[in-house]
Amino acid sequence: MATIERVRTDLYRVPLANHLTDSTHGVMMDFELVTVRIDDSDGASGVGYTYTVNHGGAAVAMMIERDLSTCLLGADADRIEQRWQDMWWCLHYAGRGGHQTSAISAVDIALWDLLGMKAGMPLWKLFGGYDPRVPVYAGGIDLEFPTNRLLDQADGFLAQGFRAIKMKVGRADLREDVARVAAMREHLGDGFPLMVDANMKWSVDEALRAARAFLPFDLTWIEEPTIPDDLAGNARIVAHGQHAIAAGENLHTIYDFAQAIDRGALTLPEPDVSNIGGYSGFRKVAALAEAHNLRLTSHGVHDLTIHSLAAAPHRTYMEAHGFGLDDYITEPMRIVDGFATASDRPGHGVELDFHGLTALDAA
Amino acid sequence: MATIERVRTDLYRVPLANHLTDSTHGVMMDFELVTVRIDDSDGASGVGYTYTVNHGGAAVAMMIERDLSTCLLGADADRIEQRWQDMWWCLHYAGRGGHQTSAISAVDIALWDLLGMKAGMPLWKLFGGYDPRVPVYAGGIDLEFPTNRLLDQADGFLAQGFRAIKMKVGRADLREDVARVAAMREHLGDGFPLMVDANMKWSVDEALRAARAFLPFDLTWIEEPTIPDDLAGNARIVAHGQHAIAAGENLHTIYDFAQAIDRGALTLPEPDVSNIGGYSGFRKVAALAEAHNLRLTSHGVHDLTIHSLAAAPHRTYMEAHGFGLDDYITEPMRIVDGFATASDRPGHGVELDFHGLTALDAA
Repeated sequence: MATIERVRTDLYRVPLANHLTDSTHGVMMDFELVTVRIDDSDGASGVGYTYTVNHGGAAVAMMIERDLSTCLLGADADRIEQRWQDMWWCLHYAGRGGHQTSAISAVDIALWDLLGMKAGMPLWKLFGGYDPRVPVYAGGIDLEFPTNRLLDQADGFLAQGFRAIKMKVGRADLREDVARVAAMREHLGDGFPLMVDANMKWSVDEALRAARAFLPFDLTWIEEPTIPDDLAGNARIVAHGQHAIAAGENLHTIYDFAQAIDRGALTLPEPDVSNIGGYSGFRKVAALAEAHNLRLTSHGVHDLTIHSLAAAPHRTYMEAHGFGLDDYITEPMRIVDGFATASDRPGHGVELDFHGLTALDAA
Repeated sequence: MATIERVRTDLYRVPLANHLTDSTHGVMMDFELVTVRIDDSDGASGVGYTYTVNHGGAAVAMMIERDLSTCLLGADADRIEQRWQDMWWCLHYAGRGGHQTSAISAVDIALWDLLGMKAGMPLWKLFGGYDPRVPVYAGGIDLEFPTNRLLDQADGFLAQGFRAIKMKVGRADLREDVARVAAMREHLGDGFPLMVDANMKWSVDEALRAARAFLPFDLTWIEEPTIPDDLAGNARIVAHGQHAIAAGENLHTIYDFAQAIDRGALTLPEPDVSNIGGYSGFRKVAALAEAHNLRLTSHGVHDLTIHSLAAAPHRTYMEAHGFGLDDYITEPMRIVDGFATASDRPGHGVELDFHGLTALDAA
């Protein structure tokens, strides 16, 4: 039995070269990165990480350092499902989702990385292996960009190899959203996969109005039209909005996804491996989606996520957005003709430049 | 305009004289108390607090200290609904419930306390005032007590003035639960309000089996028979279990309650003012319950909670369990003939003995 000997947690601030905006998170100047490094008694190591938008990273680091560590140290590193249950119940009382699952995610990812290291295999193969090549879209965070900058950004994405692009909507005046979407459609041409993301901005009625206005532009999906807490409202948008509806970055448990799927509140589940409980949580959402005949997309941390989607026959576009982390990854994911390829290095294969990152106190 | 000038957060460990056990939280040796003290520019002050079971308190304190403070300082103290929205969106990305709402709760309670101080009125009157006398039950945390100790505890509750008692169930062998409930019913006599709490122990089928076995004992309710995430399963227990079903300590948002109520997954909403988002959250759940013809009970921090229930025409028994905090409250709630009475001091009227409490580092 390989036991967990050391759990090291660190908190970093990752600056953004360009300040980003969407309809609900305000201006993003940087994001907080929480890393976990786990060593086991066989001398193997694994790395995991999660992130927060603007706030909450120190609390996530605190949970791992002070709470989750106590139920991890000395426990069997290979029984990841057991470790997951221990972590879930350790912080369940005030948790049952929320920052708890971000904390669990970082640990779960590190444990899977460690297992992959010991197996000498990449995670996408340990997860069952479907196809290492995964279609990718570029997630622009560009609500306040003037139109010319929006189109320039699109050209940059095309030059990077992207063949699908998502843009933000949710401006105060819907006509501005429509004009920007129209400009992008004209710029990219018919048939180019174009998605929009409202980041929960609208009421249900506003979302239906926007969906009607977007009909001429052949969107691949509309993302998070309203708050995820309103299942009946989202189901109304799915039923009457005449668009595919993606959502999931704000669903933090497999139960949240099960309920949204049961109620017909989304058509494209979009879990984030760094807040849904790591690979363990993501794979269960993948199973839910497949059993309900839904295509699977994703949110965030694409360098990690690709292993899950590379094992999923029902995967559609994976989200890629930089969020500045690429600068601190030894071999960041490359996009070729619209696809990324999962690495064949053992584990997830992501090597972070811990010395280059800007450490924060606390935790 | 009175602006928020100072937000002071502290973390304490409150020891339990007797170690307590239930079916999911294991042995509780102590609990973590997070306090918030807010001063405004008029020189008024308010106090709020929340708690966690075994773990997570340091992360909650960290969220208030590092994240929520940034959106509170300098803001209008009297616009509590605005402060609440700011806090919700500040920590929404990884939050949307979980430890976030415990952090928000402590601040919200402090802001209401502050408003009550300035108004010179007790909160139960500011909330609309129904009846300051609220029926109370004693919440035993006694799963592992031998039967004689269980009955002794009941005698102690009776001597303290309680006229309703809840006991834990969820032992590995259902026959032991049945024997303990039978002993309590015999000891307390016919008609004495007796509730049981399974703390999410059972599968849905096990819960239905237990409910059948408990039928001869005229229970007032069964609490948390299974995990709150399973709405369809809880609805099946409500439909076929032939018992009132209380739940809510693990529902952390008004949306969680709305969905559970919509699906018929509980009959007695039991919010906890210290994790549902403070008085603001609790009062919205109270409105949901009233509009759905459901009686309202509660969980935890009874000294604070009583103000919400004293303003609710549909309130039933409020939970009281010591959790050791009574020793640090200047005038803890008293029970007379089964009722407690909301204080007429301004605000919530709870004065904590900050010097007597055991401070922890971190935060």
